[in-house]
Amino acid sequence: MEKIGNRTLKFSKDICILSSAAIVGPKEGAGPLSKDFDKCFSDSALGQDSWEKAESMLQKCAVERALKKCNKKPSEIDLIFAGDLLNQCTASSFGLMDFEIPFIGVYGACSTMALTLISASISIESGAAEKAIAVTSSHFCSAERQYRFPLEYGGVRPLTSQWTVTGSGAAVLTSQKGICIDGCTIGKITDFSIKDANNMGAAMAPAAADTIYSYLTDTNTKPYDYDMIYTGDLGSVGSKLLYKLLDEKGIDIRDNHKDCGNMIFDPNKQDVHAGGSGCGCSASVLCSHILNKMRNNELNKILFCATGALLSPTSIQQGENIPSIAHLICIKNKE
Amino acid sequence: MEKIGNRTLKFSKDICILSSAAIVGPKEGAGPLSKDFDKCFSDSALGQDSWEKAESMLQKCAVERALKKCNKKPSEIDLIFAGDLLNQCTASSFGLMDFEIPFIGVYGACSTMALTLISASISIESGAAEKAIAVTSSHFCSAERQYRFPLEYGGVRPLTSQWTVTGSGAAVLTSQKGICIDGCTIGKITDFSIKDANNMGAAMAPAAADTIYSYLTDTNTKPYDYDMIYTGDLGSVGSKLLYKLLDEKGIDIRDNHKDCGNMIFDPNKQDVHAGGSGCGCSASVLCSHILNKMRNNELNKILFCATGALLSPTSIQQGENIPSIAHLICIKNKE
Repeated sequence: MEKIGNRTLKFSKDICILSSAAIVGPKEGAGPLSKDFDKCFSDSALGQDSWEKAESMLQKCAVERALKKCNKKPSEIDLIFAGDLLNQCTASSFGLMDFEIPFIGVYGACSTMALTLISASISIESGAAEKAIAVTSSHFCSAERQYRFPLEYGGVRPLTSQWTVTGSGAAVLTSQKGICIDGCTIGKITDFSIKDANNMGAAMAPAAADTIYSYLTDTNTKPYDYDMIYTGDLGSVGSKLLYKLLDEKGIDIRDNHKDCGNMIFDPNKQDVHAGGSGCGCSASVLCSHILNKMRNNELNKILFCATGALLSPTSIQQGENIPSIAHLICIKNKE
Repeated sequence: MEKIGNRTLKFSKDICILSSAAIVGPKEGAGPLSKDFDKCFSDSALGQDSWEKAESMLQKCAVERALKKCNKKPSEIDLIFAGDLLNQCTASSFGLMDFEIPFIGVYGACSTMALTLISASISIESGAAEKAIAVTSSHFCSAERQYRFPLEYGGVRPLTSQWTVTGSGAAVLTSQKGICIDGCTIGKITDFSIKDANNMGAAMAPAAADTIYSYLTDTNTKPYDYDMIYTGDLGSVGSKLLYKLLDEKGIDIRDNHKDCGNMIFDPNKQDVHAGGSGCGCSASVLCSHILNKMRNNELNKILFCATGALLSPTSIQQGENIPSIAHLICIKNKE
């Protein structure tokens, strides 16, 4: 592994995303990416008796589907990296327990898909794993009750707020040619003194700007060197702020930037205010739509920068700022 | 990196624990390991205006002290691995933000010290980091209010319950000769249908038994091949159960086993019921007492198996079992 510039890493091995799968809920299934997802449940509860169990089931289904797509059994996987938004990451531990795969829990809030992919890639690079899985999830109903209000309360959401995606994305990684994770920039915690828990986009944009700027500077590349730069999940408010922050550094990504939070729902037909969010948002968009485009050679080299707000309901109630983090991976077609 | 047996890993590089530090609260400072700790605060609040900020301060102080002991600056560290018990791991994100070190959040409940050390070691083995920090913490008061009752409520604790340690342990790792992490076994999630959130020892013992058994089998070694086998934190109830579970597999570790939860408090003078617990328990015992003994050549080869209960207050309220996990590292003096 090679360190490039200040804090960007380039893998020596070809770390291939052997297969990936995305499982979502009904609202996501009614959105513009519907056809890309592997399964859209018509029932938010997925037949479970709690929202938390439903979220665990999303992860389980995503991993099962990703394994099936590359024809592997759980016993062939050396390590699984997972995390989620629920307190103590229980969506992951309950959802993945039955696979009996050595388990590394991570916490990166909504940046988790990038974090699990980076951690899994490092484990393959080191030889700790031959095959590894990266997975995460979120669920609108389990997130609302934990972070905001019980659904039954019917709280009115401000226009800057984002809609937590009910979904999970999973990817199976190994060392071979294919759609490969070429490099990464691991985020630093940034704090721009945002205190509004209904404006995650604003809290996370500075972290995205910092990580994207670092990656481009370290690799001495420009935005147009990539077919697309995806962020997740800044939504409409955070994306605008990201452009502004990067403008200040002389970087313009407008022409080839998309945010997963803006892609998963239709803003004209689906009332989600500032867009989608949650670990499951960028995870399900990456593991279906984006990677499908790479497999079809519509895209050959992209950046995927997932952002997370490192708050808790307690930190918000205590009047703390909302620090955030963004982790970035460069994915290349190395067929 | 070499895979040994079913799921044990042996590092090719010498992954040295360059320095370590442990910072604790007043109750821990009044216990039998008092002289080993780097600092014992006389005030549980550490001069902060919330228990959560106090816990963040523990991590900050532990990292500062560990860096000072090996004469390194934060800017010389490539990656920091951290996690804690607070919802969304905020003790870590708020406590470590100012160091501006690329940050990987992990979640392993009370197994976190082993998990951060393993993750940091893998990152050094892969070349992702030259120098990395592993750190975790817990705080009695922030844990009680989150997991059980506000302190002011004065709830009576059953005798099987453990006392969450107010403390943090941090270690700086790099590749060189010294006190080295030689190998590791990454845990699988186990579920023995324990539902009593006041009996974590019982919930975690099966995970410890599974991981220790796997390590010994994979490496074809016996308990007496190690100067000491440390677990953390099974306490008195869980330790007895661990002996019983290992007996069934024909393994007797009684002669050279100690549990960090049984070491940190004096059961005759300090009323902690079944012993200490929390990420900060095994972390502070390892990063002071145990590693000091290794540096003094009193110990040359040990196993450190940290255990975590993967519950949340929500999962308990919903009547779920308490799954658990245990991660193990072998530490060797390679001077």
